[in-house]
Amino acid sequence: MNPEPGLQCNWRSSLARAIHHNRKEAHGRYFQLATVKPDGRPANRTVVFRGFLDDTNQLKIITDARNQKYQQILHQPWGEACWYFTVTREQFRIEGELTVIDVNHPDDKLQLARNSTWRELSDNARLQFVWPHPGENRANPEEFSPPPPDAVNPPANFCLLLLDPVQVDHLELRGEPQNRWLYERDEDLTWTTISVNP
Amino acid sequence: MNPEPGLQCNWRSSLARAIHHNRKEAHGRYFQLATVKPDGRPANRTVVFRGFLDDTNQLKIITDARNQKYQQILHQPWGEACWYFTVTREQFRIEGELTVIDVNHPDDKLQLARNSTWRELSDNARLQFVWPHPGENRANPEEFSPPPPDAVNPPANFCLLLLDPVQVDHLELRGEPQNRWLYERDEDLTWTTISVNP
Repeated sequence: MNPEPGLQCNWRSSLARAIHHNRKEAHGRYFQLATVKPDGRPANRTVVFRGFLDDTNQLKIITDARNQKYQQILHQPWGEACWYFTVTREQFRIEGELTVIDVNHPDDKLQLARNSTWRELSDNARLQFVWPHPGENRANPEEFSPPPPDAVNPPANFCLLLLDPVQVDHLELRGEPQNRWLYERDEDLTWTTISVNP
Repeated sequence: MNPEPGLQCNWRSSLARAIHHNRKEAHGRYFQLATVKPDGRPANRTVVFRGFLDDTNQLKIITDARNQKYQQILHQPWGEACWYFTVTREQFRIEGELTVIDVNHPDDKLQLARNSTWRELSDNARLQFVWPHPGENRANPEEFSPPPPDAVNPPANFCLLLLDPVQVDHLELRGEPQNRWLYERDEDLTWTTISVNP
């Protein structure tokens, strides 16, 4: 857990600015999350940014415990998000530790965060958690029209996923030449920033 | 190497269609490439698709031998591309083996491909290979205005990177419900396709 208010980090204000300037594009809130599979090969998929956890720097994502991502993260809890903003032509690479808040996670405060994240989802997003098992042979069409799940209490397979950044690499393609900054979290949880070559 | 003509795979025609329908967006040719670092953690960055190698299924990417990506791939030659198309709202996850064609690669045919990829770059893209060392402390502005490199013969740090797919996971968000197909390359290099739950 990172105790400092997130906005004290420069990368947080740069990222907030990018999100704001790309807000008209739905995909402005999508990024690609890389993880490592038990066989040592990488995996990569698009996920939706669900905001930050309270006053921390941890990025919220959701996942289904029936997905491969869930098992991968239990095995190797590191991830790197690659977030490319198409309007402002800039990239944030965010390396951090991943924590899965599943139905059995013992922390009451994080269970509250899991519950509130569920309640903030759209009906369509919630519905996917009662669809047939992801990745298995295609089920019959009627199985994709189940009764809607409870909008308040999440089903057991709904997980909140947290990415706690330790390094952020910010590249602006628009610079002349391009601008690039490297933000690193030190052991005392403060952040240092250096300007590096693109 | 995959001897079969690429367009015999269904994923190739689906991907060609996606590229075509997203051609007006420059970022339609960008995807995120995940690799694994020597410390076992994932890395992820945006790269530019440079077409397929001749009549194979191998995706061409370029990289600079001075980049961390180069060392990572020599250590662990597997990658997963995640290619999200914003106009058609579909995602291709392409898992495959990576091959770095650097200046010392012994295969003459692949050196020709490295040379031709260099010649097809824009002047601006070529210029980045004579910029100061990527990732190091920011150099003085004048170092970013070097004499342009030879447009025919690539510099020693220019590498062609090939991703040879073994599995492709295609997700269409627009379906009702979403459509998802899994393409897998068998040991005899033929491809099988199954329709799976999103």
